[in-house]
Amino acid sequence: MKTLAQNISKTILNILSKKNNVFPLHEPCFHGNEWNYVKECIDTGWVSSTGQFVNKFEELLAKYTGSKYAVAVVNGTAALHMCLKIAGVKNNDEVIIPALSFVATANAVSYCGAIPHFVDSEEKTLGIDPSKLDDYLNDIAIVRSNQCINKITGRKIQAVVPVHTFGHPVDLDAIKEICEHFSLALIEDAAESLGSFYKGCHTGTYGLLSALSFNGNKTVTTGGGGAILTNDKKLADYAKHLTTTAKKAHKWEYIHDYIGYNYRMPNINAAIGCAQMEQLPIFIDLKRKLALKYEIAFSKIEGVSFFVEPNFGKSNYWLNSILLDKPSIEKRNFVLELINSKGIMARPAWNLLHLLPMYKDCPKMSLKTSKKIADSLINIPSSVII
Amino acid sequence: MKTLAQNISKTILNILSKKNNVFPLHEPCFHGNEWNYVKECIDTGWVSSTGQFVNKFEELLAKYTGSKYAVAVVNGTAALHMCLKIAGVKNNDEVIIPALSFVATANAVSYCGAIPHFVDSEEKTLGIDPSKLDDYLNDIAIVRSNQCINKITGRKIQAVVPVHTFGHPVDLDAIKEICEHFSLALIEDAAESLGSFYKGCHTGTYGLLSALSFNGNKTVTTGGGGAILTNDKKLADYAKHLTTTAKKAHKWEYIHDYIGYNYRMPNINAAIGCAQMEQLPIFIDLKRKLALKYEIAFSKIEGVSFFVEPNFGKSNYWLNSILLDKPSIEKRNFVLELINSKGIMARPAWNLLHLLPMYKDCPKMSLKTSKKIADSLINIPSSVII
Repeated sequence: MKTLAQNISKTILNILSKKNNVFPLHEPCFHGNEWNYVKECIDTGWVSSTGQFVNKFEELLAKYTGSKYAVAVVNGTAALHMCLKIAGVKNNDEVIIPALSFVATANAVSYCGAIPHFVDSEEKTLGIDPSKLDDYLNDIAIVRSNQCINKITGRKIQAVVPVHTFGHPVDLDAIKEICEHFSLALIEDAAESLGSFYKGCHTGTYGLLSALSFNGNKTVTTGGGGAILTNDKKLADYAKHLTTTAKKAHKWEYIHDYIGYNYRMPNINAAIGCAQMEQLPIFIDLKRKLALKYEIAFSKIEGVSFFVEPNFGKSNYWLNSILLDKPSIEKRNFVLELINSKGIMARPAWNLLHLLPMYKDCPKMSLKTSKKIADSLINIPSSVII
Repeated sequence: MKTLAQNISKTILNILSKKNNVFPLHEPCFHGNEWNYVKECIDTGWVSSTGQFVNKFEELLAKYTGSKYAVAVVNGTAALHMCLKIAGVKNNDEVIIPALSFVATANAVSYCGAIPHFVDSEEKTLGIDPSKLDDYLNDIAIVRSNQCINKITGRKIQAVVPVHTFGHPVDLDAIKEICEHFSLALIEDAAESLGSFYKGCHTGTYGLLSALSFNGNKTVTTGGGGAILTNDKKLADYAKHLTTTAKKAHKWEYIHDYIGYNYRMPNINAAIGCAQMEQLPIFIDLKRKLALKYEIAFSKIEGVSFFVEPNFGKSNYWLNSILLDKPSIEKRNFVLELINSKGIMARPAWNLLHLLPMYKDCPKMSLKTSKKIADSLINIPSSVII
């Protein structure tokens, strides 16, 4: 066990820059126009909810992803919350999400008053296993008048939210087919996958709506931020309306026609986002080069393998992952202890969501593969290295 | 009517700086360390959810307001949402709020699954009328086992949320006494009143919890931002925990023990906030000087009066207000049309909340004074003028 941990540690240190003593998991990279754009905001006083950078950032996102519309919001959780709401998720509905995800995926479901319904992931993508999902829904669900009903709980299942885990695209064609068959809305949690593509299409452009995140640990950051992507003009307009307190346009009157949200991204955060988007192709290139170095280096280490993008996709390799050949929390934690002690910031996958106290009674299928992944996966430093 | 409108227009133009052609209602003022602090964030890469400026900003807020604790969040709406949640507002509870407020006050109640219950304001403060509130609660409410029950709807009334409207302090002593008598939590919506004091205490320090806002139009801005104030350490700790995804401290594990929120203020926004807080005493001084100029000038104009802070308080005069002697929406709109056409950005009070479609069926008392205020009030340019 100790040899394996030491080999992993050495392999990582050989690849990372020798200049540092500490290697963060993912730190932001500001080498572009961040400062100029932020200065412009401060000099002109346009730092808040109006200003040109929000529109510009939305245009850059739409152009890069190929999505017709992008609506910038305050963070990825808010983006996913709005996607679900706009897709019609209501109180007491169920929403299918992977058990292997960050807690925000489940929380966004809860904010709608709905119940997360956990499904298993596959080793090939680390995301929802379409084959298991199909079998499971055939078993527990029935479609009546275009509504998918969970036969066991009697509740409506309204949507499926695949997550492009650590940036790697899930098998969207297969999941989309299942969604169509079972009358389920497809909402992509693309919080981690800006710069990742599925069969040539940017992740987040397959679903009805999708959520991006620009938190400080993401490939592109705005400090805190997120965005909603959609190809449907009506949904995009509604997203913008709902996220800006649902205020109707008027030169001075305050008329709001829905229970809206204060989810608009401030202009100063969008200014950083614009500068970051200009560098995104370089970031992706450098991140993929780092992943390739890891892949080659880890191919020579026994007992562990580097996770490689599925063959139908091109990943941003947001967080690089290694997987122990023999899943074991003890072994995983031993490796984590040792490599963290060397200044290498590494972490396990998230605790599976159905194990958290607030989600322990939610419906779920067998989560065997998710557990296997959680017991063997370690994320290793993945910052853009210039 | 035309003479009145022209007199108002001339009076305002005489006071405002002659340098400009357009006079915003409230624009931010960046003359301090905004630049230096933001540059530090970008240079060090600390722009997001961790970084020294968030803690520093919280300390500055606590120090200035005299509140023991301050928790910085993503905006004022999020702050109020958390205050209500932490105060135990639950699904199907009622929360008493003024009908005369920005829609966020009601929306925050809705996010908890609770129902806004609208009460009237008084002319002296523009905020909740304590005398009417007391009579009303004696009429419709009963306290059973320390719970206030609305006898008409059968629902629990959990909290009262006075708003310090346009920065002017409400009569907190009177409202606090009513809250104690009826077992109601006092939550202050101090979104507009940073720098306003009630009998020597900063607004937002009387209630169990209170919410501040640092939106771009506020006295102090962080682009977008808010804060929760409380004197209770347990509540402050819970607020910080809930607003940071309820993640338990661990060097790498992702364990969350509540349905948490992604409401943390990014470090880059807090950096601006720190610079702004350093200037706050000057801002307040200049804003109060502008208000005094308005007060003197409008004392000579027939048909309209300038709103002056109640005698028990010291207001930040966030938004200066004039009130037409004879309330009339037609007259108010005529004045608004004319003065806006001169480049003076002016606006009415918000549409009363019980008139908005999503809140039209909520419980309410007679809202006679709120209507009178709404029909006669006009906010006029209030930026810090240096």
